[in-house]
Amino acid sequence: MIVVMQNGASERDIDYIVRRARSLGLSSHVSEQQGQILVGLSGDMRGIEPAALRGLPGVEQVKAMSHPYRLASREFRTERTEIPVRELRIGGDDLVLMGGPCSVESKDQILECAHMVKDAGGQVLRGGAFKPRSSPYSFQGLAEDGLKYLAAAREETGLAIITEVMAIEQVEMVCEYTDILQIGTRNMHNFNLLHAVGRTRTPVMLKRGMMSTLKELLLSAEYILSQGNPYVMLCERGIRTFETYTRNTLDINAVPSLRELTHLPVIVDPSHATGKASLVRSASRAAVAAGCDGLIIEMHPDPSAAWSDGAQSLAPEEFRRTFAESRAVSEALKPLTAAGG
Amino acid sequence: MIVVMQNGASERDIDYIVRRARSLGLSSHVSEQQGQILVGLSGDMRGIEPAALRGLPGVEQVKAMSHPYRLASREFRTERTEIPVRELRIGGDDLVLMGGPCSVESKDQILECAHMVKDAGGQVLRGGAFKPRSSPYSFQGLAEDGLKYLAAAREETGLAIITEVMAIEQVEMVCEYTDILQIGTRNMHNFNLLHAVGRTRTPVMLKRGMMSTLKELLLSAEYILSQGNPYVMLCERGIRTFETYTRNTLDINAVPSLRELTHLPVIVDPSHATGKASLVRSASRAAVAAGCDGLIIEMHPDPSAAWSDGAQSLAPEEFRRTFAESRAVSEALKPLTAAGG
Amino acid sequence: MIVVMQNGASERDIDYIVRRARSLGLSSHVSEQQGQILVGLSGDMRGIEPAALRGLPGVEQVKAMSHPYRLASREFRTERTEIPVRELRIGGDDLVLMGGPCSVESKDQILECAHMVKDAGGQVLRGGAFKPRSSPYSFQGLAEDGLKYLAAAREETGLAIITEVMAIEQVEMVCEYTDILQIGTRNMHNFNLLHAVGRTRTPVMLKRGMMSTLKELLLSAEYILSQGNPYVMLCERGIRTFETYTRNTLDINAVPSLRELTHLPVIVDPSHATGKASLVRSASRAAVAAGCDGLIIEMHPDPSAAWSDGAQSLAPEEFRRTFAESRAVSEALKPLTAAGG
Amino acid sequence: MIVVMQNGASERDIDYIVRRARSLGLSSHVSEQQGQILVGLSGDMRGIEPAALRGLPGVEQVKAMSHPYRLASREFRTERTEIPVRELRIGGDDLVLMGGPCSVESKDQILECAHMVKDAGGQVLRGGAFKPRSSPYSFQGLAEDGLKYLAAAREETGLAIITEVMAIEQVEMVCEYTDILQIGTRNMHNFNLLHAVGRTRTPVMLKRGMMSTLKELLLSAEYILSQGNPYVMLCERGIRTFETYTRNTLDINAVPSLRELTHLPVIVDPSHATGKASLVRSASRAAVAAGCDGLIIEMHPDPSAAWSDGAQSLAPEEFRRTFAESRAVSEALKPLTAAGG
Repeated sequence: MIVVMQNGASERDIDYIVRRARSLGLSSHVSEQQGQILVGLSGDMRGIEPAALRGLPGVEQVKAMSHPYRLASREFRTERTEIPVRELRIGGDDLVLMGGPCSVESKDQILECAHMVKDAGGQVLRGGAFKPRSSPYSFQGLAEDGLKYLAAAREETGLAIITEVMAIEQVEMVCEYTDILQIGTRNMHNFNLLHAVGRTRTPVMLKRGMMSTLKELLLSAEYILSQGNPYVMLCERGIRTFETYTRNTLDINAVPSLRELTHLPVIVDPSHATGKASLVRSASRAAVAAGCDGLIIEMHPDPSAAWSDGAQSLAPEEFRRTFAESRAVSEALKPLTAAGG
Repeated sequence: MIVVMQNGASERDIDYIVRRARSLGLSSHVSEQQGQILVGLSGDMRGIEPAALRGLPGVEQVKAMSHPYRLASREFRTERTEIPVRELRIGGDDLVLMGGPCSVESKDQILECAHMVKDAGGQVLRGGAFKPRSSPYSFQGLAEDGLKYLAAAREETGLAIITEVMAIEQVEMVCEYTDILQIGTRNMHNFNLLHAVGRTRTPVMLKRGMMSTLKELLLSAEYILSQGNPYVMLCERGIRTFETYTRNTLDINAVPSLRELTHLPVIVDPSHATGKASLVRSASRAAVAAGCDGLIIEMHPDPSAAWSDGAQSLAPEEFRRTFAESRAVSEALKPLTAAGG
Repeated sequence: MIVVMQNGASERDIDYIVRRARSLGLSSHVSEQQGQILVGLSGDMRGIEPAALRGLPGVEQVKAMSHPYRLASREFRTERTEIPVRELRIGGDDLVLMGGPCSVESKDQILECAHMVKDAGGQVLRGGAFKPRSSPYSFQGLAEDGLKYLAAAREETGLAIITEVMAIEQVEMVCEYTDILQIGTRNMHNFNLLHAVGRTRTPVMLKRGMMSTLKELLLSAEYILSQGNPYVMLCERGIRTFETYTRNTLDINAVPSLRELTHLPVIVDPSHATGKASLVRSASRAAVAAGCDGLIIEMHPDPSAAWSDGAQSLAPEEFRRTFAESRAVSEALKPLTAAGG
Repeated sequence: MIVVMQNGASERDIDYIVRRARSLGLSSHVSEQQGQILVGLSGDMRGIEPAALRGLPGVEQVKAMSHPYRLASREFRTERTEIPVRELRIGGDDLVLMGGPCSVESKDQILECAHMVKDAGGQVLRGGAFKPRSSPYSFQGLAEDGLKYLAAAREETGLAIITEVMAIEQVEMVCEYTDILQIGTRNMHNFNLLHAVGRTRTPVMLKRGMMSTLKELLLSAEYILSQGNPYVMLCERGIRTFETYTRNTLDINAVPSLRELTHLPVIVDPSHATGKASLVRSASRAAVAAGCDGLIIEMHPDPSAAWSDGAQSLAPEEFRRTFAESRAVSEALKPLTAAGG
């Protein structure tokens, strides 16, 4: 159950709800979403009368919740969330295109990539400075140097930047440089890290765990939202199945499913979701046709020389074509799906 | 290894290859594809010189095969297969739209559906007369009566028809009525049935097993092709994964993957691949954007009254809109992907 | 709902139930289990009073069913089914050990195997005469010759035999030779074949589909039981997951789960469930410790020369040791689990 | 490639190897395992002569590595690792039994549990003080108070204790109280946390990610080992599959597979691997029969009142019986598998 407080509700009003909840054996959780105070109540709700809460001072509304995720649900918020990132609105009318290399390898490399992304019509530059690698013996990223090179590339091109944060102690530093924080697939259940990025106001792109259900993804988003950061976008990046021809299986159903379940923007990463450069263009078009709000795609000036993920990185010409075809699908569908779809 | 015979090769030439193979400890397999005789050789190929075979009378070409499926592979045939079905060419330039109810329930019902499919711009009417049901206590189909009603609907609307065949002893009867035979997901590994439909010349739509790899799908197609029926189209209908929000997971990667691996047309069934009517429209657009040759979609004049699969059947208005948006995506992409995509 | 008829119920009593059901809009299904006539009713049960049926002539009992499988459920039958096979009782107190080669390759080979199985303490000889192979170019079995060699091996050793039947038209012939019919994993959903073996009275071992839930396995068993053949044993043979180190994942939870859900005996096939000879012995011990009624294990006098499944076939010494350790676990647990477990 | 240094090797000898590697374009990684210095070399090994390295001062041995995990592999260390925990040797001849509640709920509760574990013949008490919960609104654990109660229970019963650590900043505190650190399934890929526990010398139980392959599990173990902590035990706790009757699928094949691949001890958690109390006893027996070194089982004085995981927690009598039967299987197999199994 969520108690939505009026705009003018006082601290005392909120406190009263919290104490009342405790006396009923419930735990409570105060959060703020876009300026409004919410008190979430958990526990055994049988015998609690919403009407009794509705009459308390400062209370605007009392909502029953049918999902364990609350702030992320469409029940809680019906209009779609738009996330402001520099001059962009992620989740708005226009498709957002993000691209760049798996890892920041050098200043020259990231600048070269940034210009390619810009020329291909992209708005956001991706690049990893901290790399979560399965093997402790693999390249682990350039750390703060990588962040500086990204910032330099933003300076030069005007692109926004997105980069991964892997640990709580990196959050502050990464926030100084980046426009969007990425939580990687292996950290979707790293609840302390989710809490830490939830305490910032930097937009977060939360990648789905490679074997996580949509419900679990929404619960992880809830960890961030419940700390007060309303700027969460979700990223489908392929799930693990029995099929071995592709590295992962792009769960394209996730796109319309998430649009049913949540008001948060949905991004698709066709690079990890296929693991093969030859499939990325088709998968990108499909993701846009399914209704996603943006794409994030790995590219490299010379994929065969990439330090990581070379097999799935697009060469410049294929990358340009992928962005162009994706935008064409988006434009073709705008008049048709305007009525909701 | 495949020995491709010249057009004028004699029985004796073929026999000679077969005997020669046997003397080398190999098994051989003679088939015909679009008028050309092929002799497939299996066994321990070390020490076999393709050059020695190439010099034999009647031999046009000797191809090494890197895949266990041969006739289905792009190595074997580089140009894409187009399947003639009445006036249609499945696998050609135009998207093919198939629709209809899960089960044929009555003559009136199938006629009503046929008109809706026609009006929505479809070319093929689907409907099950034999139903493979998990429970022996569920409705099992109208059998030959169902086939007759389908034929009557074709008569009245000019639509081609597709219907499932579940057992060898049904093949002859179903072929008398239908334009396309459907092999269902639960029969993808029913090798005797595959052989039986391979001995006909009726086009076959082979549905992927719900937990079968693409390689296994191609091997099942090979069973049909190896009996001489070249008209096989493959159908992605969703795979089984851990995700429970949807009935299956549409493996959208399968579309471009199959286009890399095989010359056979690829159809997508977004109804089974999602299991939810609310997701079918988005999934259909995605499948077309990914490059499929056709869609097969379940609809019903009144889904809530359907005898089977009501939850995933589209109501008339949503069905019309799905076909319209799918065709719009197809048309928007034609100029862009003409160069191969 | 299942109406259990009295032993002396007349045809007319049964007919009356069937007509009564029809008048209520229900479909009915008459079957016989161990001499007792059952009438299963399906359809919309709201508004049907069990009491009203209970009073009809010839009716012994009326049971509500909470599962879609009925005859297979513990609700329907609480005591465990024992299946008589020659002098054996599968599902009784003693562990049943089955072994033999994947394929019958020659008379000598199967005789040699039979003696090894006998010497290792086994009671049933397995061997495939009809082989379902993913590729049409692989060895497909010796057919009736294979069955004759199996019968000869039974003659010589006294072992019972089990062999796979792949198609309806083989059922009669295979029944002439074998003691137990095997339905392979790829045919678990071949409903016509299930019906055909259900019309015999030969015991059937039904292998779980590699992609099938336990509920689906029980529904497939129901297809057989509903035709009157009460002698069905279920076989866990590994499921398909993301793990690639093993060929399949042995779902050991399936053993106690099936014992909760059904009265039918449970066999485990650790050869296919691991796909690696080095893991079979451990997996066999585990299956017995989990409470299965029997094991079926692939062996070969010389695994490296086997025509199929060599990688998972045990060499003679390892095979003997596997049976010995499995029996030791079984004996150690007998006093402990006698009270149910 | 791993360069194993002699016991008397100097810093200068090690430095020389590192610089030599760099000049060959390789990266190097110095670690210590049980008193011996190892230098791991990564990169393009073609053209590197092991013989040339073997001749350098201070070098004892140069090993080629066929797996990306090195220190964890049987190639690197053939004898099995035994981990000393108070008077126990985990990975030695005797089965180790761990049990306790999911969460520490109060001092009384954990003391009551500890006595039950002790009485049932267990050696280690489990209990969560920090709880990783999918929902931010669920109970998150008693934190340091929970650790104090665990230590009090150890004081009173002599049991060793194991508890989960979820974040780097908790490591120091948790190490002050616990005998074994648990890394939970959701943190298997939290590489910074793995590094942090690798820098301690407290034994670690690393749980397999519910979506992780065995190879990935071993790579995560490698993160810990590579920091110098040699005391890592692996825990199979069920993987996520399509089956929904059980919460997870116990991958019993993992037990003998890991014994082939690594020298580290293997523990099984049948509580999470089944998710149902009624299946835990059978699964425990199976795990022991498959060859695991220990079990970790959830119990509760009153499962219906547990704050978390009640459905899979054993009541006292069933818990006692589970430990007794598991030990009986272990004892029955000792004489049989002594020769390696």
